[in-house]
Amino acid sequence: MEFMFSNKVKDMKPSAIREIFKSLSDPNVISFAAGNPSPLSFPVEKMKDVADEIFATQASVAFQYGITEGYPRLREQIKTRLRERFNTGTDDDELIITTGGQQGIDLCAKVLCNEGDTVICENPSFIGALNAFRSYNTNLVGVDLEDDGINIEALENALKANPNTKIIYVIPTFQNPAGITTSLEKRKAILDLAKKYNVLILEDNPYGELRFAGEDVPTIKSLDTDGRVLYCSSFSKILSAGMRIGFVCGPKELVQKIVVVKQVNDVHTNQFFQMVASKFIDKYGLDEHIDFIRGLYRDKCNLMLSELDKQVGDKARYTRPEGGLFIWLTVDGANGDELAKRAIENKVAVVTGSSFNPIQGGYSPSIRLNYSTPSDEQIIEGVKRLASIL
Amino acid sequence: MEFMFSNKVKDMKPSAIREIFKSLSDPNVISFAAGNPSPLSFPVEKMKDVADEIFATQASVAFQYGITEGYPRLREQIKTRLRERFNTGTDDDELIITTGGQQGIDLCAKVLCNEGDTVICENPSFIGALNAFRSYNTNLVGVDLEDDGINIEALENALKANPNTKIIYVIPTFQNPAGITTSLEKRKAILDLAKKYNVLILEDNPYGELRFAGEDVPTIKSLDTDGRVLYCSSFSKILSAGMRIGFVCGPKELVQKIVVVKQVNDVHTNQFFQMVASKFIDKYGLDEHIDFIRGLYRDKCNLMLSELDKQVGDKARYTRPEGGLFIWLTVDGANGDELAKRAIENKVAVVTGSSFNPIQGGYSPSIRLNYSTPSDEQIIEGVKRLASIL
Repeated sequence: MEFMFSNKVKDMKPSAIREIFKSLSDPNVISFAAGNPSPLSFPVEKMKDVADEIFATQASVAFQYGITEGYPRLREQIKTRLRERFNTGTDDDELIITTGGQQGIDLCAKVLCNEGDTVICENPSFIGALNAFRSYNTNLVGVDLEDDGINIEALENALKANPNTKIIYVIPTFQNPAGITTSLEKRKAILDLAKKYNVLILEDNPYGELRFAGEDVPTIKSLDTDGRVLYCSSFSKILSAGMRIGFVCGPKELVQKIVVVKQVNDVHTNQFFQMVASKFIDKYGLDEHIDFIRGLYRDKCNLMLSELDKQVGDKARYTRPEGGLFIWLTVDGANGDELAKRAIENKVAVVTGSSFNPIQGGYSPSIRLNYSTPSDEQIIEGVKRLASIL
Repeated sequence: MEFMFSNKVKDMKPSAIREIFKSLSDPNVISFAAGNPSPLSFPVEKMKDVADEIFATQASVAFQYGITEGYPRLREQIKTRLRERFNTGTDDDELIITTGGQQGIDLCAKVLCNEGDTVICENPSFIGALNAFRSYNTNLVGVDLEDDGINIEALENALKANPNTKIIYVIPTFQNPAGITTSLEKRKAILDLAKKYNVLILEDNPYGELRFAGEDVPTIKSLDTDGRVLYCSSFSKILSAGMRIGFVCGPKELVQKIVVVKQVNDVHTNQFFQMVASKFIDKYGLDEHIDFIRGLYRDKCNLMLSELDKQVGDKARYTRPEGGLFIWLTVDGANGDELAKRAIENKVAVVTGSSFNPIQGGYSPSIRLNYSTPSDEQIIEGVKRLASIL
């Protein structure tokens, strides 16, 4: 038979990035295209240790249905860490465990957006979030990202022009794809505009723990006094991406509605690994392991930057992240699609900037470089290959 | 701030059933209310054995991002089992791993239904599916279930009356909540009507492996010659509910669209437990373990039925399932809500039939009884308590 897809999804295409994974089978290609954590960042032995404990003493809980909100002990542990580490979350907030950070974004979109409603986001922005918003047939409006965060004047213009805006979606810390951190002033300005135009902010912070230089900037949620910020994050870049554990923290009424919608989406998140994460925190804490990852990414980022300085020099501009996984490289006047194409011909994979444009098929003079997954040798050789096409 | 929820979700309430879990803390209450598998059905030692192997040799795969379609080896194993065990799935089909069977239903609804589109289902039907359809603001139309499946004449009338029908949703084998198995004749008739009115069938078969009496009836999908049946199921009732692994098998074009939508929903399903399920099948196979579960549920079902025969007799009608987890008890003229209320006052928890009515707040003279989770002693005592209120 011929299929009629819903209006929401009929124009959706597979994510260019995840499709790249499939074509990376050529062993001679060096990949700067991933969004993956380093395999060295997985604390396998400690995870095995706590998994053994669960098998031995709590298997019947781990293997049975759990509650949609998430494993209670883990929720408390995350709440505590958010408060102590990021001054984030109040007594008016609640927290739900999600199947990765991605599900948190998807559920927020579903709970808040009717088809045609506007979501304002940074341009460029995280493709997984853009596609989640697209999958509810929302109107995506991109506002240009500058070196210190979104252009505030343009944000206000976008809010004025789109009175049906429901969400401002931002990744203020070590942004994906641009590696940029939004300044405190701009965070306050974004919050002020959200108040003025009565919209919610969805603050996505999957990389916030991965600062390897500079000083923490307060989360937007920590500045919020009237409960208009939903904060989501995950363990994907800290413990394991494959286990799919994220969370959303926000005003109780909102989180309660997210619980209802998650219940019909996947009932609850993998119970065993919620317990693994919880026991890991109880037994080992997160700080020591996160310090290790920070050191790892600091070294890799510094290496890629120094190679770019040596090999690329003023043939391109690139961001100098203080954390996270990505460097954003721009050749003014060039076409990112063309750069990415020539790069893969030269056996180095990058992601074209246009993938991250809220307008599908929109122009970008940039490419995204990932430094968390390649080895040091691959970083050196890959930057050399990249430099030769610039 | 005050929140405006999307039209899709604004009237959604937490599932009555999952809410019951939370209130089952009274140790004196005997619960026939669960939809859970028996804790005895989890093959913990074998799962631990294969988990150990993954930790030892494949941790970097298990902890990293995977592909949205699912762990390739597991997909092949499930395809093989569906063909060999149920004659289900053809070369024109594809299979995606989902985060439990629930996500399969949710994604099918999202991919196929616009707001206001009609989904026809059995009355009563699985509350998780009903709520998933509700969460996309579809129009749910229930068709009465008889002892051998849905009323075919009423199904055709519903199709005629609702030309915007996109999906017929059925659980033909050991139906939840009614424990009924649709006859082969009615399966053929449902498929014929789906052809005649050009709609898709979503065949939900989470209990199909749990037959403990009688003979298998062919799946609707195995009768389908023009690719209009999506088939979903899960490992929740076979290996573990908490691990959240299900699947959807259907025409390639449809499954490819489901992949795109799952990508933005949760990227992929927990990778470690996909590998656990896969290694379990490779090393131990499923048949021996499933035979054990069948024996367990056969005994529990027979015990509950014989106690009902003794204690309740002709004060009520009840189904005699040949598999699955549930017995459906009806007191003609009574109110299921009232029965459930009096039952819990008498320290036995059941689920009111009205929860399963596609019309929210709709009437039902029935209650659902689960026999997979209570102990034998609890079954005997619980039926006694139940009989005393009838």
